Amino acid sequence: MTKLGITFGDPCGISAEIIEKSLRTAEKEEIEFTLFAGTDAVRHDDILRTLKAVSGSYPKGKYSPETSRFQINSLIKAMSFIQNGGIDAVVTAPINKQAFVDQGYKIQGQTEFLASACGCREVAMMFIGDRLKVGLITTHVALRDVPFTITTDMIVSKTFLVHIFLKKFFNLDSPAIAVCSLDPHAGEGGKLGGEDIKIVSPAIAKLQEKGVAATGPHSADTVFHQHLSGRFDAVMALYHDQGLAPFKVLHFEDGVNVSVGLPFIRTSPDHGVAYDIAGKGIANPASMISAVKLAKRLAAAKKRDE
Amino acid sequence: MTKLGITFGDPCGISAEIIEKSLRTAEKEEIEFTLFAGTDAVRHDDILRTLKAVSGSYPKGKYSPETSRFQINSLIKAMSFIQNGGIDAVVTAPINKQAFVDQGYKIQGQTEFLASACGCREVAMMFIGDRLKVGLITTHVALRDVPFTITTDMIVSKTFLVHIFLKKFFNLDSPAIAVCSLDPHAGEGGKLGGEDIKIVSPAIAKLQEKGVAATGPHSADTVFHQHLSGRFDAVMALYHDQGLAPFKVLHFEDGVNVSVGLPFIRTSPDHGVAYDIAGKGIANPASMISAVKLAKRLAAAKKRDE
Repeated sequence: MTKLGITFGDPCGISAEIIEKSLRTAEKEEIEFTLFAGTDAVRHDDILRTLKAVSGSYPKGKYSPETSRFQINSLIKAMSFIQNGGIDAVVTAPINKQAFVDQGYKIQGQTEFLASACGCREVAMMFIGDRLKVGLITTHVALRDVPFTITTDMIVSKTFLVHIFLKKFFNLDSPAIAVCSLDPHAGEGGKLGGEDIKIVSPAIAKLQEKGVAATGPHSADTVFHQHLSGRFDAVMALYHDQGLAPFKVLHFEDGVNVSVGLPFIRTSPDHGVAYDIAGKGIANPASMISAVKLAKRLAAAKKRDE
Repeated sequence: MTKLGITFGDPCGISAEIIEKSLRTAEKEEIEFTLFAGTDAVRHDDILRTLKAVSGSYPKGKYSPETSRFQINSLIKAMSFIQNGGIDAVVTAPINKQAFVDQGYKIQGQTEFLASACGCREVAMMFIGDRLKVGLITTHVALRDVPFTITTDMIVSKTFLVHIFLKKFFNLDSPAIAVCSLDPHAGEGGKLGGEDIKIVSPAIAKLQEKGVAATGPHSADTVFHQHLSGRFDAVMALYHDQGLAPFKVLHFEDGVNVSVGLPFIRTSPDHGVAYDIAGKGIANPASMISAVKLAKRLAAAKKRDE
């Protein structure tokens, strides 16, 4: 029996709907759930009651500042269970980032919050589907800042985290990781840009010295096809759209966001609070269900590993 | 009977193989081919003989400067047939861009050559597959230069070319065209970058004034899924990898490159000369076959339109 924690997320969004639907699917999966709802940790039949009660207390479809404490407290409660061994993994439902602002945090999102809470210095954001695995070197950076944000060290450390993660959780001895190029056609041998030669190539060399089966820089218009055809186990994209535009062509509905580098297992659906459809009962739970299943799979792999 | 011209391309690459395979498939398609091989224009049984003879004259697998004149002459011959009405459309096999350099041209590639030869000032590069249609605002530009290269006028004029193309050749009254944002999540309302507000949004407004059903800026990590689900007829990407990384996830093998805005129909396979597999008989002709079929389809649509 895997013990999975789920944070409630933003009660004004689709959280309650997708969590309820996920629980139903997960009944056959031998999972014991704990729902973190504000300062409460609830189990069994109390989960459905809590989903209904909390959801009923707030209007749907737009952000309510009065939910900010509830949203953050759910995360804090989850952290206490993680640290005390009360759960094997946590799945975080989507929140509104404004909740951090309203609670006085200078923090960008849930991943940063969790990393900071456990003193973890570096995390890589990874997106996992049945067919594609994509890690990001940078996340929410304006395109014009990307060439000046990426560094050789950053590429090395984030790619190394993904290497460790794939070895540990996907049973790969030496995962083949492709690193994208910044410029089209891998910079055409230095004719374009120059960052691929100055920044990306030295990172590949350092990774190879560390024993990582990393290659690149690879042109982003061919590397995902090569990943699909089995040549690579994962692709590291240098910036948000380079990784997520191709990833979501195949995994828009069922992709899962995984935080790689945290000292515990954390997955989340790769969508937001979806205010536009909240409360209508039409929210697609596929990504949440995939996040639950992947968390269970990773927890099982971790147990085998220990 | 559609009259299609095919340029030979680089005889040291996979041209002859993929052209031969395409001819076989096209036999059922009611197409009369003309092959442009240097200064020769050949037909019927002479095509296979010419493919074999020319291929046999050059070593495979790397660029030979002595082929440069042959490669460019094939294009010039094609232009003369286009201008004299000898063909309804042209399919260009891949060449090595070094051929332009060696023949003294200051030109980037075949599209620019053809545009220049017919005095055409603006062309948009478009990629077409069964499931996705993607236009590019910029093509071979270093990522760091993209934010400083895109202009409102450029987005308007290239998107307008795609609008006209889709109306004329795909029988769409008012094609729904999505324009991508430069920054992740469409710039998050101006928090990132700023180009989406300053450059992209005004272009959308101008296009709408001109009666084009253009919308955006759309986040590149959702827009391709919306295109797939039928909400849009095409996506305009602001830069190379933003459009081609997602496009080639689905259409790596069968995608076709179309030059939109030329006064004639021109398609080409969306791959290069492939020296690494040239002469081995293993080159995949799928993209060339799709390019032939699409050229035929576009020629038929043009005849209906006239």
